[in-house]
Amino acid sequence: MNQRLQSLSHWMQQEQLSFALITSTANVFYLSGFYSEPHERLLALLVFPNDEPVLICPQMEVAQAKRSGWAYSIIGYSDIENPWEHIYTHMNKRSVTVENVAIEKTHLSLERYEQLCTYFSVRSTVNVEEKLRQLRMIKDEQEIAILRQAASLADYGVEVGVKAIAEGKTELEVIAAIEYELKKKGVRQMSFATMVLTGAKTADPHGTPGLASIQKGDFVLFDLGVILDGYCSDITRTVMFGQPNDEQKQIYHTVLNAQLAAIAASKPGTEIGAVDKAARQLIEQAGYGSYFTHRVGHGLGIEVHEYPSMNATNTMPLEPGMVFTIEPGIYIPDIGGVRIEDDILITENGAEILTKYPKEFILL
Amino acid sequence: MNQRLQSLSHWMQQEQLSFALITSTANVFYLSGFYSEPHERLLALLVFPNDEPVLICPQMEVAQAKRSGWAYSIIGYSDIENPWEHIYTHMNKRSVTVENVAIEKTHLSLERYEQLCTYFSVRSTVNVEEKLRQLRMIKDEQEIAILRQAASLADYGVEVGVKAIAEGKTELEVIAAIEYELKKKGVRQMSFATMVLTGAKTADPHGTPGLASIQKGDFVLFDLGVILDGYCSDITRTVMFGQPNDEQKQIYHTVLNAQLAAIAASKPGTEIGAVDKAARQLIEQAGYGSYFTHRVGHGLGIEVHEYPSMNATNTMPLEPGMVFTIEPGIYIPDIGGVRIEDDILITENGAEILTKYPKEFILL
Repeated sequence: MNQRLQSLSHWMQQEQLSFALITSTANVFYLSGFYSEPHERLLALLVFPNDEPVLICPQMEVAQAKRSGWAYSIIGYSDIENPWEHIYTHMNKRSVTVENVAIEKTHLSLERYEQLCTYFSVRSTVNVEEKLRQLRMIKDEQEIAILRQAASLADYGVEVGVKAIAEGKTELEVIAAIEYELKKKGVRQMSFATMVLTGAKTADPHGTPGLASIQKGDFVLFDLGVILDGYCSDITRTVMFGQPNDEQKQIYHTVLNAQLAAIAASKPGTEIGAVDKAARQLIEQAGYGSYFTHRVGHGLGIEVHEYPSMNATNTMPLEPGMVFTIEPGIYIPDIGGVRIEDDILITENGAEILTKYPKEFILL
Repeated sequence: MNQRLQSLSHWMQQEQLSFALITSTANVFYLSGFYSEPHERLLALLVFPNDEPVLICPQMEVAQAKRSGWAYSIIGYSDIENPWEHIYTHMNKRSVTVENVAIEKTHLSLERYEQLCTYFSVRSTVNVEEKLRQLRMIKDEQEIAILRQAASLADYGVEVGVKAIAEGKTELEVIAAIEYELKKKGVRQMSFATMVLTGAKTADPHGTPGLASIQKGDFVLFDLGVILDGYCSDITRTVMFGQPNDEQKQIYHTVLNAQLAAIAASKPGTEIGAVDKAARQLIEQAGYGSYFTHRVGHGLGIEVHEYPSMNATNTMPLEPGMVFTIEPGIYIPDIGGVRIEDDILITENGAEILTKYPKEFILL
């Protein structure tokens, strides 16, 4: 078994768990190396404290699962079969005594939980997510190498986007240019719907790009990332088309200083809340506190939002191997907004900034 | 209240439900018109039998929710607040007696269910999904108009893709061309990761595009769709690069005949299972039964897979207003595969095929 499965099995021995039912795409991938988006179908990994794991997937994905390197049993089921029947039969063969079961509580639906309880006499459940979050939060060398490459492709995406800016061009036209060039570089999928926003729309942290066109005097905000070998990157840059007015300058430099302060605070042993506070304090001092409406960042890895959550109340200390975003922003309704985001890796001595696109106030 | 909310409230009166907690992106959009992908954050709609509904969303999305036309209360919460506290306070103001609560059982996670039970003395739960599936399964005129347009954009995607085919071009280069042109037409997001597969990779119904390049004698398979105003399209076409051998010809024509037979069977009153069987029978007769490894199709709408499930065991009769895919395929490992998929609308008299890209065996 790989080291991740071993760590999980070892933990299960200690916790005296009967088996773990892993059903989230991300955790199945993390533990098995098999990435599949099963939609409403069941994709599951059963992990045992003292036995080999088994993968359950739609019949039509069995061949792919094998090719992905999965070396243990696979249970395939067709669209007219109930996968739980297969699991039940399989478990009977193993003669597992079912008592305490590990499940993903924020992922497992109530319906699947009820199925589990119908087929097995579950006495109690434990949330396996906490253990998997701990494992996933500290990236290994291979994961870091992929995250570096993914960040570099995100840089390239912004570079293409900045070059594509021209008066009258729509947000979607700029996105088209970015994703076209990234696909030519072998990127299959973005981490999330690429965001290019212009003018007053930049005031929405989660705005929706469309047919709005770039005009002189607009902020243009890019928020994008790629998925590379199962790992996400995530970068935000805001540039100026034309000459900025005084308020635009002030907003930009306030966000930049806040972002640099949060990065400077990021090193092993620092409480995560202090990273958020480092940025927030500067924004508050500049009088924009109420316009910074979200946490300073989020963990990054197989999922574009994962642990640790970089918010003001998180008392967890940073550790080498953690990867997260730092992305303060100021959003003034009907005026516009600025966000600057990098991907950060905590190292033994401090932090490595994985995304490297320039951050000085770019005027086009 | 809009007609959808009215239908739900009316049903809740009949069922004597205290309130409904709707948390899936798709159902929140269907009922409220507000589309948001909240990741791990809570997005929820509380619907009542005899009172106005309320939307719960992250603080930073409140402005967007208002702009989307939501005319009732909105509860915004920040990243360091617990949204359940807000919900609890709000419900206390309304003095709702909580007894029987409607939830989405295949969507609500066990953790959120436990939160619900911590804050409210829930006596019993009812799955609201069945009611919402029934409502969503029959599309109204406005939805049909959008689905027609979405299908037409999917046709255009295939058209661009077929034109982009050239010897040595990679699957991802073809995808880049397709999505570039679609974005220029105003498409923000695809229904799912666009699939262009070539050669033996076409044998994977859920294959992953990459740097494989198109060679003479290859099938090239396109499976793609767009999201337009919240509604999905989904088309598959398989074309031939170079001259087909006898087996390739036979596979193609078997799938095409199966697809046409399933479409011919699609009319009001037909049992859904009979549509699957119409296709499956022809494929079995041609000796390829074991290579058609999935159901004949799936419902289509706000989600790319929704009700009805077009499988052999579904005894539900087709009704006017249902929209679904018909997409039989034959997949021969290490050789290749063919799938042909259209989006179908059941009308009063029969079926309207929404996707219109040609289906004759195209040789390039």
